Amino acid sequence: MNHQDWVRKELRALSVSLGFRYIPPEEIGERLTRVRAGMKKQDIEALLVLQKMDFYYLSGTTQDGILFVPLEKKPLLIIRRELERAKVESPIENVVALNSNRQLPSLIKDCLGDIPHTLGLELDVLPVRDYFRLQELFPDTQLMDASLIFRDTRKIKTPFEINLMRGAAEIGRKVYLDAREILKEGMTEIQFGGLLEAAAKKYGHEGLLRVRSLNYEAYSWHVLSGLSGGIVSQSDSPMGGLGLSPAFPVGASLKIMKAHEPILVDFGTCYHGYQVDETRMFSIGKMDQKFIDAYNACREIQDAVLEEVRPGADCEALFVKSLRLAEKLGYKESYLGPPGLQTRFIAHGIGLELNELPFLASGQSYPLEERMTFAIEPKIVFPGEGSVGIENTVVVTRSGYEILTNVSQDIFEVEGPVKLK
Amino acid sequence: MNHQDWVRKELRALSVSLGFRYIPPEEIGERLTRVRAGMKKQDIEALLVLQKMDFYYLSGTTQDGILFVPLEKKPLLIIRRELERAKVESPIENVVALNSNRQLPSLIKDCLGDIPHTLGLELDVLPVRDYFRLQELFPDTQLMDASLIFRDTRKIKTPFEINLMRGAAEIGRKVYLDAREILKEGMTEIQFGGLLEAAAKKYGHEGLLRVRSLNYEAYSWHVLSGLSGGIVSQSDSPMGGLGLSPAFPVGASLKIMKAHEPILVDFGTCYHGYQVDETRMFSIGKMDQKFIDAYNACREIQDAVLEEVRPGADCEALFVKSLRLAEKLGYKESYLGPPGLQTRFIAHGIGLELNELPFLASGQSYPLEERMTFAIEPKIVFPGEGSVGIENTVVVTRSGYEILTNVSQDIFEVEGPVKLK
Repeated sequence: MNHQDWVRKELRALSVSLGFRYIPPEEIGERLTRVRAGMKKQDIEALLVLQKMDFYYLSGTTQDGILFVPLEKKPLLIIRRELERAKVESPIENVVALNSNRQLPSLIKDCLGDIPHTLGLELDVLPVRDYFRLQELFPDTQLMDASLIFRDTRKIKTPFEINLMRGAAEIGRKVYLDAREILKEGMTEIQFGGLLEAAAKKYGHEGLLRVRSLNYEAYSWHVLSGLSGGIVSQSDSPMGGLGLSPAFPVGASLKIMKAHEPILVDFGTCYHGYQVDETRMFSIGKMDQKFIDAYNACREIQDAVLEEVRPGADCEALFVKSLRLAEKLGYKESYLGPPGLQTRFIAHGIGLELNELPFLASGQSYPLEERMTFAIEPKIVFPGEGSVGIENTVVVTRSGYEILTNVSQDIFEVEGPVKLK
Repeated sequence: MNHQDWVRKELRALSVSLGFRYIPPEEIGERLTRVRAGMKKQDIEALLVLQKMDFYYLSGTTQDGILFVPLEKKPLLIIRRELERAKVESPIENVVALNSNRQLPSLIKDCLGDIPHTLGLELDVLPVRDYFRLQELFPDTQLMDASLIFRDTRKIKTPFEINLMRGAAEIGRKVYLDAREILKEGMTEIQFGGLLEAAAKKYGHEGLLRVRSLNYEAYSWHVLSGLSGGIVSQSDSPMGGLGLSPAFPVGASLKIMKAHEPILVDFGTCYHGYQVDETRMFSIGKMDQKFIDAYNACREIQDAVLEEVRPGADCEALFVKSLRLAEKLGYKESYLGPPGLQTRFIAHGIGLELNELPFLASGQSYPLEERMTFAIEPKIVFPGEGSVGIENTVVVTRSGYEILTNVSQDIFEVEGPVKLK
């Protein structure tokens, strides 16, 4: 059998037997309706969807390609490499091959009947050089920024998406249970992190955590023990860790985890592209009371914020509430980072990417809406000593919230040596 | 001790004790000299270095920031978040904080004495929205594309860089030795891939493989067994594998690895940002003679190409030579992919990113130069059955080449059941 025939006849059944869930046509239809509402508001006649996660969201495939979305006519899926596989994966009906970017205008003209006067692009991520090429290919078309259409549509998850996030949460739950068997005195942070990743992959974790950004990277092996937890790095988070080198100065390091240190594990998992983010505390033997108290404060702050989470609650107000409570509990100087480096958010939206809307943050005054999903992560940092924190991924429900990352929030203590006083 | 004091006094010694190697000032100086030669050629007065790997290459740090490089005056390191850590990591002398992008013009004016008339940017990766902001901030400055300056400079590695690649190769060597103990009948591809990653991390592998691209992603767990190896995906490589979902349709899957299948392991490792890429074949019990023959052909093709690798050899000619040999050996239809989907390269440059110059590829007619590094990977694909291949990362020496990824190229066979005939 030749390759194309094999893909057409066998690939879908094989994939489904190995756990693949394809996005149904109705789901894509619903998403397109919402995206088109955004296009109408901005007077955009058509979109060229280039960024991998926007492309997946609207086409159901991540094969190398471009999705053309006119306001009214059917979308056109334009594929560079594996056309047959894209057809298997995507419910989009019109699928064509692209051998050279120069074909783009004629393909679009065939689809739409004309070249659009306005064309929306993801200008928040599209490289300048690609933009210049598109200007040459569409000299009479106004190229517009459609980034917000994607961000606004994607911030409200469909039930289908929330189900995939439950899948990611289930992987995370198993990893955190396994972690209790994996953690041993004498391991390095990165060794522990690597074994957690291996456990996660066994359960189907996809390994890459995606971020919408040129430079911002994410990863699962964020294991910070003792003083590593007090170290800040390039990411906008309360603690970055030491990492492995100046090229990767973040997350787990080759430091050996010692008894009685707080060990913070911030581990994201990914299922069908959908992520959940989750932090739990571990220790080998009991950790110092100072850290236990601070951890309990993080839980109290989390619970107080979550108590007010419901459609209509203001995102910035929730952040400010957490600040006030941290101050009242005595952690003004250590809440969300060391003095001078404290971050200004307590939660980030999450889904296909780790930096989606909404942000429960300074300057983000807008209401929560039903089916938004975010990771809430109050953390407390003691420079030179360590850090503690909790993180859960939640979905906003009709009248409140539901925690997706359901695993015990208690500190997990593995057996360690008797502490000398 | 407050955080800043701790970072100033303790961070460097702690990091070095845990294996960090900082880029020395002379090394940065040498790189700046080469970059400036490129600036002169293009008549660029100054560069704004924004992309993480270019930034690391010239500053020695990956803290969140921008490097301003004037043609003659000293460069200015502009840091958004962790100023003190950047000072510890970078040999750049002038380091300032950036609280808002609006400060950029005045910082640059203070450094240079004036606003430059021409400013080079990485237009191959810089998002359009950031470019528009820079146009607003520097209305009288001509913004130019400096991407090629970085790509051209970085394609020739310094001895310091080659040493770091040796570090990555040493991690890879240990992983491939461990792999022989890890592989067991009944494991899934992703389980094997996850355990290889865990082994690599234990030895200091940094986990993220970087690619210079909006959408192209790389990862270490490229484990393809049997028919998985015949499946193509979004990446421009001979085989993509099944992957885990339509959101990640590449690399290892939940397929169980069976006895006698060819198991292709394409595993990249990363040390201080520097990568090597390496492929070896495994099997549980003996694999079919058809695959053994094809694998031996891949080795023969690799060796024949390497025999001609030296400064001055033409990159495209080496690719064409490999095509001819594959055809002569009877693999015209299966070399570098299934018919219609065959890739047009046999090697890609490698270093801080996986898609550096040079490419031994169709349309890439330019000479190899001393201290270029590339991963050469002849592969043969049988749709619906499996694939085989070899990959090594090499450095071009004064008169030939040296293989960095030194581990046995023989097929590694673990014990399996007796094959029924």
